Amino acid sequence: MSLPASRFTAALRIASRRYPAQRGAPTPRPHLGREHVRCFSGSPRWQIRTKEMNDDLMKDLKVNQARLMEDIHYTCQWGTGERWGEKPTETGMARLALSDADKAARDWFVEATEALGCKVTVDAMGNIFAVRPGLRNDKPPTFVGSHLDTQPSGGRYDGILGVTAGVEMLRVFADNWTETEYPVGLVNWTNEEGARFPMSMVASGVWAGSIPIEAAHSLREVHPGTETMKSELQRIGYLGSTPASYESMPMAAHFELHIEQGPLLEMANKKIGVVTGVQAYKWLTVKVKGRDTHTGTTDLKSRADALLTASKMILHSHRLATANCALASTGILNLKPGSTNTVPGEVTFSLDIRAPKDETVDKMKDSILRDFPKIAAGEDVEGSNHGCTSGLSLEVEIVEDFDSPATNFHADCITAVRQSAKSILGPNQSMEMTSGAGHDSVYASKRCPTSMIFVPCREGVSHNPREFCKEQDCASGAQVLLQSVVRFDRMRDERRVSWKQEPYTL
Amino acid sequence: MSLPASRFTAALRIASRRYPAQRGAPTPRPHLGREHVRCFSGSPRWQIRTKEMNDDLMKDLKVNQARLMEDIHYTCQWGTGERWGEKPTETGMARLALSDADKAARDWFVEATEALGCKVTVDAMGNIFAVRPGLRNDKPPTFVGSHLDTQPSGGRYDGILGVTAGVEMLRVFADNWTETEYPVGLVNWTNEEGARFPMSMVASGVWAGSIPIEAAHSLREVHPGTETMKSELQRIGYLGSTPASYESMPMAAHFELHIEQGPLLEMANKKIGVVTGVQAYKWLTVKVKGRDTHTGTTDLKSRADALLTASKMILHSHRLATANCALASTGILNLKPGSTNTVPGEVTFSLDIRAPKDETVDKMKDSILRDFPKIAAGEDVEGSNHGCTSGLSLEVEIVEDFDSPATNFHADCITAVRQSAKSILGPNQSMEMTSGAGHDSVYASKRCPTSMIFVPCREGVSHNPREFCKEQDCASGAQVLLQSVVRFDRMRDERRVSWKQEPYTL
Ligand SMILES: [Zn+2]
Ligand SMILES: [Zn+2]
Repeated sequence: MSLPASRFTAALRIASRRYPAQRGAPTPRPHLGREHVRCFSGSPRWQIRTKEMNDDLMKDLKVNQARLMEDIHYTCQWGTGERWGEKPTETGMARLALSDADKAARDWFVEATEALGCKVTVDAMGNIFAVRPGLRNDKPPTFVGSHLDTQPSGGRYDGILGVTAGVEMLRVFADNWTETEYPVGLVNWTNEEGARFPMSMVASGVWAGSIPIEAAHSLREVHPGTETMKSELQRIGYLGSTPASYESMPMAAHFELHIEQGPLLEMANKKIGVVTGVQAYKWLTVKVKGRDTHTGTTDLKSRADALLTASKMILHSHRLATANCALASTGILNLKPGSTNTVPGEVTFSLDIRAPKDETVDKMKDSILRDFPKIAAGEDVEGSNHGCTSGLSLEVEIVEDFDSPATNFHADCITAVRQSAKSILGPNQSMEMTSGAGHDSVYASKRCPTSMIFVPCREGVSHNPREFCKEQDCASGAQVLLQSVVRFDRMRDERRVSWKQEPYTL
Repeated sequence: MSLPASRFTAALRIASRRYPAQRGAPTPRPHLGREHVRCFSGSPRWQIRTKEMNDDLMKDLKVNQARLMEDIHYTCQWGTGERWGEKPTETGMARLALSDADKAARDWFVEATEALGCKVTVDAMGNIFAVRPGLRNDKPPTFVGSHLDTQPSGGRYDGILGVTAGVEMLRVFADNWTETEYPVGLVNWTNEEGARFPMSMVASGVWAGSIPIEAAHSLREVHPGTETMKSELQRIGYLGSTPASYESMPMAAHFELHIEQGPLLEMANKKIGVVTGVQAYKWLTVKVKGRDTHTGTTDLKSRADALLTASKMILHSHRLATANCALASTGILNLKPGSTNTVPGEVTFSLDIRAPKDETVDKMKDSILRDFPKIAAGEDVEGSNHGCTSGLSLEVEIVEDFDSPATNFHADCITAVRQSAKSILGPNQSMEMTSGAGHDSVYASKRCPTSMIFVPCREGVSHNPREFCKEQDCASGAQVLLQSVVRFDRMRDERRVSWKQEPYTL
């Protein structure tokens, strides 16, 4: 592609220069002043305008796979985790939110996006918004975003892929002198994992108005428990002055690229998941109370065995999930007193129930509230007592800790992703799916049109050092992300023309 | 009863004087010299000889219920545990072996038994043997015994009742100028509970030659782990010079009074359990290995859920126990990684299997070794998969940690207990039973005729602060213990006469 030089060329050349090798120390980047940052808004019409692109021209906006991978692995120098293979990049990640490692990754994000001509805003939750001007900068940007924090034994792709793909999108636009009708943004959301400060997606939740900022600021780190979210935001210099709110930082849309974190794409041999929504889920805590007794001296009839009863309940929750095409999982179980020769008198366990529809999750919960007390009382529920000795009656308490209703993503965003996947990979390489896990897109979707793009990860493994996504799949996902933004930008313009007004204005 | 005064009267009067009130500080007791200790062996025939007693005279050797209870509660000032009721005696016990509290209880034991004319020997395991001379002191004593240590949240009866009932027996003999044909002994075994130094019945095990003394001495305390059994024996002054062995301290018999620690006597409304043996048991550790996966993104088919599989195994072990009239119990269960939204990839649990016969325990173990790998592999075992989604295959490892074969107590000891119970309480107040739990009597029975006497405890609760045995039941048990010793002493003499040789000589 050959285009006339312009006064922006110098800046763009700097922005598109190759980054230093991943294992080297971070190299200072030239800082771009305000005059450069605003340069796009007044750019003349000879830039490539997205509204003038046909499918072929869109394909020319090509993600650089090697550069994307280099960004991923370069930024993984901050908070490198457990090694699982021999290659330099075969380690996990341990980059807890607002740690020194997270600060380093954030600084990289700010420098990289400012170098690409973006205006960077940090809000009171430490969310970082980088906005690349379009032609109509009086309107909210079309955003892409994800998170740079990881689980304590997390991987290199969860969250990181989504953010680096956003940076790659900005690089491709810069390289190709692309001019969008509306501004385009990239957001890094704070503490998505909820691993250090125990509330997942808390910062997008505050932005959406779903979580009060005071509650978020006062969240105390899980370990060692001395710092709060606010004190750590302050310490690393990311307590911004802009209110954390969709009103201060409106979005016209939010697209998020993410590894699937499950096995469905791999099993179906598809490259792209067109995510139509996020399934509903509830977290319950179940406490079973029986009686501590000696394992040797207490016959089966005289027991109130809390663990045997909990085992029946866990098995029954799995049967209910099977019957309802839902999910039921117990990830935490604690018992008392914990001695080989004492029948446990108390067991507490978590129960995570999920389904694409709220009604299914509600039905699961109703069944649990109906059946668990019966199981505790010793009644047979669908064969739960088959072959058992009936013992003494136990008590059960069930508390709902967390409720996340089903999220349905926006048809326009879903369409943009579906068309992009088909255009880039052909007709049979994508499938529609719901996300099993929560993401910042859940809160984003409360305030703007949203959807997500999934790429396969090896064996569905995530939140684990061995988490892995093939380079080609990372690049395909980033390509679909980029094109979805372009398509959405064009759609906004078409709608404006046909409707004679701006769609998606908050 | 009125008997001529003798040169022993002074000593006996001191021995039978009332102990100070339970909440007072321990009062120093007058120390009896060696000349008093040996006085019984040469006593003239006008003492009451057990061989001359008929059933009525035996009944006159009457346990003093109030004095027994006072000894129990007086000694519970050392290591008092959690309060569960309002009365001064309504607390549990926390008297870990070889602690300062245990030392205080041991000092009381030594003083009390020496004051009653006993010779006290401490062996290299800190076992304390108090021997009251009989007429034929060249032969081993008929022993009673139990333990003064408790669980960290134990009760006032387990172990303590057996020892204090032995002291009460000595007091009754002293009060009544009773002369036994053979010496009579009382033993306090060290660390029966295995709560502080993690090996139950370790000191009787060393005595029996089943556990090497080096292994026992080097046992490290569970918490905080700085001291060993030997260093603590030394510190509290109970590392005796006598070898811990049945050869150095032979016993003609070992009788142990103990609370049942189970509900059978209470349910049957019986006062005395005539214990014919101790059931066999094995301790297994089962490790189930699956895969950590996200609860929200992993469909049921793609899971290797270690906790769901462990639940099936626990339920199946209970079914096997039901089918075999055996017991199966899981008291410990740990899982990894332990997060609400992660399906656990690894679960480790204990499995305690018990039955009166070795063959039954062996059969249970064989069934477990056959069935658990099938359950892990996803096969249905007797309906274990009913209503379930079949997932991925898991692995299971099963290790046998501990094996205690069935113990059959000695017919002569059992007969002595059975006859005593019938004589004292009438024909329908006792029942024959096996002990579910291990006791020092298990090791004692390897080296001498042994049996046990059980009394009911409230709701079968033991190893718990609320452990409770009615005063009348404590006294009945002590009365049966005393009479069993007298009957056994007479039986030894009768056998000697009819067989022309000593029975039970080691
Ligand atoms: Zn993520
Ligand atoms: Zn005991």
